[in-house]
Amino acid sequence: MKENYLKYPTEPLVIKENIKVSELLAAMGRCSFQARNLSLALKVWEKMLKEDTFIFFGLAGAMVPAGMRKVVMYLIQQRYIDCLVSTGANLFHDIHETIGKYHYIGSTEIDDIKLRQARIDRIYDTFASEDEFIATDNTIAQWAEEFPKRNYSTREFLYLLGKRLFSYQEDGILKSAAKVKIPVYCPALGDSSIGIALTELYQKRGVKIEFDILKDIAETAYLASLKETGVIYIGGGVPKNFIQQTEVTAPFLGYKVSGHKYAIQITQDVPFWGGLSGCTFQEAQSWGKIALDADMVTVYADATIILPLLVTALAEKKIKRKKIIKFSLDEKLSVKI
Amino acid sequence: MKENYLKYPTEPLVIKENIKVSELLAAMGRCSFQARNLSLALKVWEKMLKEDTFIFFGLAGAMVPAGMRKVVMYLIQQRYIDCLVSTGANLFHDIHETIGKYHYIGSTEIDDIKLRQARIDRIYDTFASEDEFIATDNTIAQWAEEFPKRNYSTREFLYLLGKRLFSYQEDGILKSAAKVKIPVYCPALGDSSIGIALTELYQKRGVKIEFDILKDIAETAYLASLKETGVIYIGGGVPKNFIQQTEVTAPFLGYKVSGHKYAIQITQDVPFWGGLSGCTFQEAQSWGKIALDADMVTVYADATIILPLLVTALAEKKIKRKKIIKFSLDEKLSVKI
Amino acid sequence: MKENYLKYPTEPLVIKENIKVSELLAAMGRCSFQARNLSLALKVWEKMLKEDTFIFFGLAGAMVPAGMRKVVMYLIQQRYIDCLVSTGANLFHDIHETIGKYHYIGSTEIDDIKLRQARIDRIYDTFASEDEFIATDNTIAQWAEEFPKRNYSTREFLYLLGKRLFSYQEDGILKSAAKVKIPVYCPALGDSSIGIALTELYQKRGVKIEFDILKDIAETAYLASLKETGVIYIGGGVPKNFIQQTEVTAPFLGYKVSGHKYAIQITQDVPFWGGLSGCTFQEAQSWGKIALDADMVTVYADATIILPLLVTALAEKKIKRKKIIKFSLDEKLSVKI
Amino acid sequence: MKENYLKYPTEPLVIKENIKVSELLAAMGRCSFQARNLSLALKVWEKMLKEDTFIFFGLAGAMVPAGMRKVVMYLIQQRYIDCLVSTGANLFHDIHETIGKYHYIGSTEIDDIKLRQARIDRIYDTFASEDEFIATDNTIAQWAEEFPKRNYSTREFLYLLGKRLFSYQEDGILKSAAKVKIPVYCPALGDSSIGIALTELYQKRGVKIEFDILKDIAETAYLASLKETGVIYIGGGVPKNFIQQTEVTAPFLGYKVSGHKYAIQITQDVPFWGGLSGCTFQEAQSWGKIALDADMVTVYADATIILPLLVTALAEKKIKRKKIIKFSLDEKLSVKI
Repeated sequence: MKENYLKYPTEPLVIKENIKVSELLAAMGRCSFQARNLSLALKVWEKMLKEDTFIFFGLAGAMVPAGMRKVVMYLIQQRYIDCLVSTGANLFHDIHETIGKYHYIGSTEIDDIKLRQARIDRIYDTFASEDEFIATDNTIAQWAEEFPKRNYSTREFLYLLGKRLFSYQEDGILKSAAKVKIPVYCPALGDSSIGIALTELYQKRGVKIEFDILKDIAETAYLASLKETGVIYIGGGVPKNFIQQTEVTAPFLGYKVSGHKYAIQITQDVPFWGGLSGCTFQEAQSWGKIALDADMVTVYADATIILPLLVTALAEKKIKRKKIIKFSLDEKLSVKI
Repeated sequence: MKENYLKYPTEPLVIKENIKVSELLAAMGRCSFQARNLSLALKVWEKMLKEDTFIFFGLAGAMVPAGMRKVVMYLIQQRYIDCLVSTGANLFHDIHETIGKYHYIGSTEIDDIKLRQARIDRIYDTFASEDEFIATDNTIAQWAEEFPKRNYSTREFLYLLGKRLFSYQEDGILKSAAKVKIPVYCPALGDSSIGIALTELYQKRGVKIEFDILKDIAETAYLASLKETGVIYIGGGVPKNFIQQTEVTAPFLGYKVSGHKYAIQITQDVPFWGGLSGCTFQEAQSWGKIALDADMVTVYADATIILPLLVTALAEKKIKRKKIIKFSLDEKLSVKI
Repeated sequence: MKENYLKYPTEPLVIKENIKVSELLAAMGRCSFQARNLSLALKVWEKMLKEDTFIFFGLAGAMVPAGMRKVVMYLIQQRYIDCLVSTGANLFHDIHETIGKYHYIGSTEIDDIKLRQARIDRIYDTFASEDEFIATDNTIAQWAEEFPKRNYSTREFLYLLGKRLFSYQEDGILKSAAKVKIPVYCPALGDSSIGIALTELYQKRGVKIEFDILKDIAETAYLASLKETGVIYIGGGVPKNFIQQTEVTAPFLGYKVSGHKYAIQITQDVPFWGGLSGCTFQEAQSWGKIALDADMVTVYADATIILPLLVTALAEKKIKRKKIIKFSLDEKLSVKI
Repeated sequence: MKENYLKYPTEPLVIKENIKVSELLAAMGRCSFQARNLSLALKVWEKMLKEDTFIFFGLAGAMVPAGMRKVVMYLIQQRYIDCLVSTGANLFHDIHETIGKYHYIGSTEIDDIKLRQARIDRIYDTFASEDEFIATDNTIAQWAEEFPKRNYSTREFLYLLGKRLFSYQEDGILKSAAKVKIPVYCPALGDSSIGIALTELYQKRGVKIEFDILKDIAETAYLASLKETGVIYIGGGVPKNFIQQTEVTAPFLGYKVSGHKYAIQITQDVPFWGGLSGCTFQEAQSWGKIALDADMVTVYADATIILPLLVTALAEKKIKRKKIIKFSLDEKLSVKI
């Protein structure tokens, strides 16, 4: 009986002067705690890519100011993800950098009142120029002013923003997503500088961009029903909840689903406060959001460390997807993009 | 020089057999760590109420399933808050309970697979019947089917939902807000069961509720400019960010603001991951979201404990607002509700 | 089947203008998340007191500078605990305050370099005078110089310190413990200012206090075998581990135990890093440290808020212990105190 | 003025298929949040090694069961640290593995009652055989029985344990430390299975190992005064506090110190609860524990991930210490204190 529990000894990690990131992560799989979870996350992601899985990627937290823009871009370019759901802030910051502006190395040991006086916006240890942010706001408003006047899903609108970036030299998230036609959703677009820019456009220049938020819900539920799905959550918030709820929505709309089959989350939110951001995948199984036989893992750690490690390991392994999933949101859902 | 730092000794808290909650919280003000912050939060809230302050209240996390519905209802009834910004889930759960359904005492030490088989949805240590949730979904869809067909701000739509609850015996958040005409916003309404219900209504019965998300942004920026503002955040997420961004939006729209003047947050999110949920009010000052001379405090603790303590202390003190702030969103912003 | 999980609805907490702390905590028991755990902690503590239970109390974290000295003192005086295991710092700070010195209300928004220059020691938001600390160090060294020269368990030594405080007007933890003869252990006494004071005494004046650390281990294992035991942990660290290990040690020494029967911990340490401080009582059951049928609860929250609430609620209820547990460490273990 | 804050843009991390761990960590230095802190930690450690710095290493948490034994061993062998202060548990587990026993890959999704019945001890997601632990306890007791009967500092006692391991094939922490004569301290040795083993030895066989805990304090304060010092803390607890307090103790004993000059901590403990484990190095500066001009950084992350990354990066760089610090505690301090 005892033997059932004592089959595989942990193996102390041996330091090597010459080891690949993917090998180091593999070695962590024979350690414990979050190291083992990190190792398992790599395995689950690999498995998703090798199977014919549709991968949703939820992006919360100030990941672009933190330097993760090209990591997410790489995921899109390699088709290591199939659909992005993001906060508005990350997309605003992505545009900001893609059109040639910057976030800056800052500090937490600083007097914020002096920053205010210098018109510097702080994001933890990172600074930004408020005037540069306003310039990007204005740029977005100008673009939107030229967009066809109709009702948009956030995916449609973000696709137009992405295409508008084609003329810039720098690449980024929205631009690469528009290129490879990966859908990007932002369920709380109003809760961001993009929303602010559009509100100003309306109030000052009378040009109104209207959003069809129900179409986002319907489309993502449809996408979730195409085939087996996997989810990867960087932080929680709306992106996590929105992707989770596809499995709840789908049956309402007549689509057949049985819970996401693979699930990775990288978060520092813990379950004890009862919120969705910190909830476990086990809890999600009770709702049917995650399949009862899912491969699932939570890595409790800051994504700015974990995401580069995982994606570098995937890159080293030159993993190719079994096949790139082709889908057209135009035909199936009568949506032109 | 040393004396400047050593003016006020801490006073060991003395246990009394007969002490009011407000007195206990006052005593904590001479202790340290989160006890002192809790005490300070009470003082800041009191000050907001005694001054002519417009109070935004951001509600994230599964606070209604956790038993906080009538605490928030009380805040509305007493006009201890002037505007509510919430996640969709809390409002869905509020409707669920107001129409006579329940959340249930559950456990975290449970097999979620068995819960799934019994169609029980788990929220940490709390259970709900999936079928009862679906019934509430359907009820919301039926109501919405009868609503006038036009473009709604979330405030307008939630007001209609609130009025629809008048015929029920039980009181709650949306119902009491509709009664006293406190505006309720839900910037990510699509990211909730309410959004799911409306999507089904559209897909299955062709009835489409359309949302004007920019109106939410414009209105809240306008409200933030009416007079001095205070903010109270239960958790972070979209409600916190949306209220914070009013101070950024207002100048774009020609409204004059100078940062929220009072600020309380009750959260377990820490600043170290750089996200908006965990960011400090100091950081927010750099953005101008919080006034440079604001009274501000963060209580790092679970809101299910802190909110009842704070509101009970306010109740004991029978604090009356200096004057109830009157405002009509109809006239000022040409919005009919 | 479903019905098994849906027996007890949560009851939204109703705000009352006139409610006792104990009633408020009782109401939290029908809410969720940490509020429910807090309520349960009160119930478990009550049950311990009503049963014939030996209660170990582990005290970590800077609880005395935070104003908790008289809360712990009250627990000792009321015999709501039977044995205290503490960090050295809390006992040093207890002596500091009992002999008439202070900790001071400070701030976290401060330049520590200026504090250093002013010889102010900071403990998060609390200040202390380094010179006053040194004076207390010297006082302890002077007392110890007069103690009989022999080998002490930390309990014996701390009892002498407690008695030495009888001549002071102020009461505190060590003093009240010496009065009612509750044993106090400090397994890492060297890791504190008390240890520093004794080291200086030896190095400078050649007077050496020697410690018999094995006697601490043997005694606490013996105490754990006297009758059913309960444990209450404020934070983790050495106090928690030391009390937990009594159940492991006892069988080695021929004492019969079957795991602590009641268990409460108030902590912000989570299990995910694998350390003892954050480990769950379920994990402890695998070791036999906690009884398989124990009443146990973890409240994830700052003890500076939770401890005053729990102890005030106990005080309101005027709970009397079934009977005060009498034990003499002298006879049983040939230890004179 | 604004320009002062906007000198160095963050640089989005670029995913490369061929990158060394040290290069990846360098790239993280131009990102934000904990990635930047991780990068900075590597720089600070490198700087310590290149300068003539005495490096204290504090080890808390169940790092050996988690697979970190050979990482710490490597640090000792390479002389990347000069003095180890550990919890007793890590040293017990180190002996356990060095004499050929194991920890095992386990799970957190397990019934601990069944584990208890199978005599399996759980450490988060890792299992151990209780009988194997008892065997190691007995082995330690047997060894200690043969040690010379005198009063030991924990360093002296742990050195004897380390030498006793020379006859085993496997290498580990205590064995390698004994080989290269790096001092190892365990200020709370009684709070561990080693303490339990020695207590049993005394109670059952009348053989008593006595400890001179003041000698540990005196020696470490002396070591801290030898030259500039650096500290690296894996977790908090007694090891962190004990190393921090050397700077407070030294002046009492007549040694001149001016605060640790380099400081790294890898922890998930946050400052908000006021405890020593989570306190910042800024706070420590107010006490004089950390030099006012120290290079210091906290990485908020699980050490099971961070430690292998940092040490692999050091290994890749083949960093040599400027010179190995030679000191003999025997001669220098002749066990005289």
